[in-house]
Amino acid sequence: MDFKEKSIISIRDLNQESLREIIKVSSDVKKGKYKNFLRKKVIATLFFEPSTRTRLSFESAAKQMGAEVIGFAGADYTSVKKGETLGDTIRTVSGYCNVIVIRHPVEGSSRYASEVATVPVINAGDGANQHPTQTFLDLFTMSEYFSDFKNLRVGFLGDLKFGRTVHSLAYALSLFGSTIWLISPEILRMPEFLVDELRINGSSVREIDNLELVDEPLDVLYVTRIQKERFGDFQEYMRVAGSYRITRDVVESLGKDIKIMHPLPRVDEIDPEVDEMENAIYFHQAHNGIPVRQAILGMVLDVIP
Amino acid sequence: MDFKEKSIISIRDLNQESLREIIKVSSDVKKGKYKNFLRKKVIATLFFEPSTRTRLSFESAAKQMGAEVIGFAGADYTSVKKGETLGDTIRTVSGYCNVIVIRHPVEGSSRYASEVATVPVINAGDGANQHPTQTFLDLFTMSEYFSDFKNLRVGFLGDLKFGRTVHSLAYALSLFGSTIWLISPEILRMPEFLVDELRINGSSVREIDNLELVDEPLDVLYVTRIQKERFGDFQEYMRVAGSYRITRDVVESLGKDIKIMHPLPRVDEIDPEVDEMENAIYFHQAHNGIPVRQAILGMVLDVIP
Amino acid sequence: MDFKEKSIISIRDLNQESLREIIKVSSDVKKGKYKNFLRKKVIATLFFEPSTRTRLSFESAAKQMGAEVIGFAGADYTSVKKGETLGDTIRTVSGYCNVIVIRHPVEGSSRYASEVATVPVINAGDGANQHPTQTFLDLFTMSEYFSDFKNLRVGFLGDLKFGRTVHSLAYALSLFGSTIWLISPEILRMPEFLVDELRINGSSVREIDNLELVDEPLDVLYVTRIQKERFGDFQEYMRVAGSYRITRDVVESLGKDIKIMHPLPRVDEIDPEVDEMENAIYFHQAHNGIPVRQAILGMVLDVIP
Repeated sequence: MDFKEKSIISIRDLNQESLREIIKVSSDVKKGKYKNFLRKKVIATLFFEPSTRTRLSFESAAKQMGAEVIGFAGADYTSVKKGETLGDTIRTVSGYCNVIVIRHPVEGSSRYASEVATVPVINAGDGANQHPTQTFLDLFTMSEYFSDFKNLRVGFLGDLKFGRTVHSLAYALSLFGSTIWLISPEILRMPEFLVDELRINGSSVREIDNLELVDEPLDVLYVTRIQKERFGDFQEYMRVAGSYRITRDVVESLGKDIKIMHPLPRVDEIDPEVDEMENAIYFHQAHNGIPVRQAILGMVLDVIP
Repeated sequence: MDFKEKSIISIRDLNQESLREIIKVSSDVKKGKYKNFLRKKVIATLFFEPSTRTRLSFESAAKQMGAEVIGFAGADYTSVKKGETLGDTIRTVSGYCNVIVIRHPVEGSSRYASEVATVPVINAGDGANQHPTQTFLDLFTMSEYFSDFKNLRVGFLGDLKFGRTVHSLAYALSLFGSTIWLISPEILRMPEFLVDELRINGSSVREIDNLELVDEPLDVLYVTRIQKERFGDFQEYMRVAGSYRITRDVVESLGKDIKIMHPLPRVDEIDPEVDEMENAIYFHQAHNGIPVRQAILGMVLDVIP
Repeated sequence: MDFKEKSIISIRDLNQESLREIIKVSSDVKKGKYKNFLRKKVIATLFFEPSTRTRLSFESAAKQMGAEVIGFAGADYTSVKKGETLGDTIRTVSGYCNVIVIRHPVEGSSRYASEVATVPVINAGDGANQHPTQTFLDLFTMSEYFSDFKNLRVGFLGDLKFGRTVHSLAYALSLFGSTIWLISPEILRMPEFLVDELRINGSSVREIDNLELVDEPLDVLYVTRIQKERFGDFQEYMRVAGSYRITRDVVESLGKDIKIMHPLPRVDEIDPEVDEMENAIYFHQAHNGIPVRQAILGMVLDVIP
């Protein structure tokens, strides 16, 4: 796939080959193969919703490669308050920059933005829908430890119903045929049509409600947050949350090579004592946002050959 | 006029010659005649009120020419909350930058800021009063289509009572002797003293309440938003708003060469179907904020010869 | 002291020699001895609380020396809202930058941040506790007028109970053995353990409640704001505030060489008519934030020899 001037909206627009290409370029960027390749480019970061990690890593990524950044960190300080449509904001800002990075609470807003923009748009999260650069950095991080995704065994733990991160990453892994374990309380299971899709793409998928039921060694356990707002009954939440909390003991029970990942922010689903274990790679994962986002910006702006 | 180290506060501080000079330099900047001329300069953008367009275009303009930008996008995150006066904020920030761009809700605040600052101040909107760089980009945009402002026929449509944009632009055009049509509901007519001034400056001015009453071909129709808050009676608003809404049919009735302009943001006074017509130049107009603001920054900082 | 890769958290971590070194390097930086020394560095400014002066001067300081800046100007636009701990935010952002500048309302938060960060942390204010770079710029400003701190006579006026600025600066001066006058209403006196400490460090300290009781010429009068919230009784506040207000007459009564300093923002404790007097150096003091913060950034990043 040629990324030149393309918008990056959904993981579903990409195939295995494009994902391999993103991983390869990210790796080259991380090794320092390309220098200052975003010089003279202006990146607009339009965050209609709060974010620390995604916004700061996009901005640091861009600036380290010589780009200029304009934008905002919340809709309060924009003309949205005066009733301006998203389309008009995007059309206007298109004239001020070379690429737009957008986070917006409404599902589909990034796709719409890419249709009216005259520059490429990168989706940095549209509600519960998509956040493709998170998936890229998740895959890239896995690729640093495992060269063969086909034989990778990945467990997803926690809220598999609402988490866009899990949906996108599981989808991406299924394109490679990885083995996928879905571990969640009954009420937070992954929607059936998504599970079907993973299988159609070629993954072996198992759905269970308890980590102890995994009967083969996992390579990666991808943990997500369980939000108490999802439960009507607080007692039920407490019961469930406890059994999806990762402690040092749980990690040790999973074998010495297991990698623990998490998209962050975490609340209390991973005990801080796990942070010091070699298995914990979630901060390393977050830091990979820099080379991966540099790679994507370089590819859509056609400044990486 | 020598712009070196001068503050840009009100269109009324400028004459025809200075406006011609701004248009000329903007045109040179847009053609790429000057490169990187804001290098080593620090621009402070102090926005005490929300803005997308003006702030982002100033920041993109400055950064594209090599400047550094500091500032804030709303008064919440400043010492204003601690009771600091505007004067003290300006005096302090003067020591951190080479030029201050200020938007503030209070009329006259920019003039006051320019009196206490030790660096030039550019008014980016002081309440209902002035927003001179908007007028510069409006004039520059017109100059791209029409070389002779004296024979230009411009219609202003909508809220002519409260709109600072219209007041400033009409004033500027009157310095060139353009023909001006003022088209508004009775209760939103331009204040009489402003109309008198346009005539004294040499413009022929006609005031009407209906676009159909224009009896000569217009070159430009400058549309503005009618805010429903201006009307006590919602029925009256609905009746009026409808007849000041620009559709494809209205544009076609105005002749094939008419240019439709708007300062943006728009709400619904221009039908989105108009966007695709060649007559619609309002996004182009907004994008001209870049070269025009680069020109102004370069002139007051004396880095454009 | 070697500042390389060290965090700057509290004035209490420094001795007389380190303070002299900071003053010396700041002076060299101000004279233009080092150019562009922060090139290729990324500074994260994490302001969990509002600030104009400190944030903008750090950002301008960094950018003028070639650094890139990422960050936020208030906690609203961060993942803190989603329940992320400060530790996780710091661990994550560590991977995006070379140094973290943090302001946070909780006392001790900066120290904690420095313990989890993998890059140096500079405390830009942690609640009522510490704000060391303010003290550095205060000392540096004094050094521009007075070469010998041992024989310096400094009066501190206003709220000496709660003001972190006063506590830190008085402590720093006591390391040099300066003479210190503490002038405040009874209920806003400096905590006794702090006064004891100044004396143990070698300062002569006098505590009085009225500026007229100072019986020797002062070199510097350091004025601070008295917040009315500190008083239960508004009448009492009014009576007290009046006698701690600096006017032209008061300055003149203090001798022609007295320097009036203030950390800013001020409300009404210094009459604006004082601003024009040569004795008033508080805006000059604020502007010294630029070279001093450049010096500190350069020292902890080990790019100033």
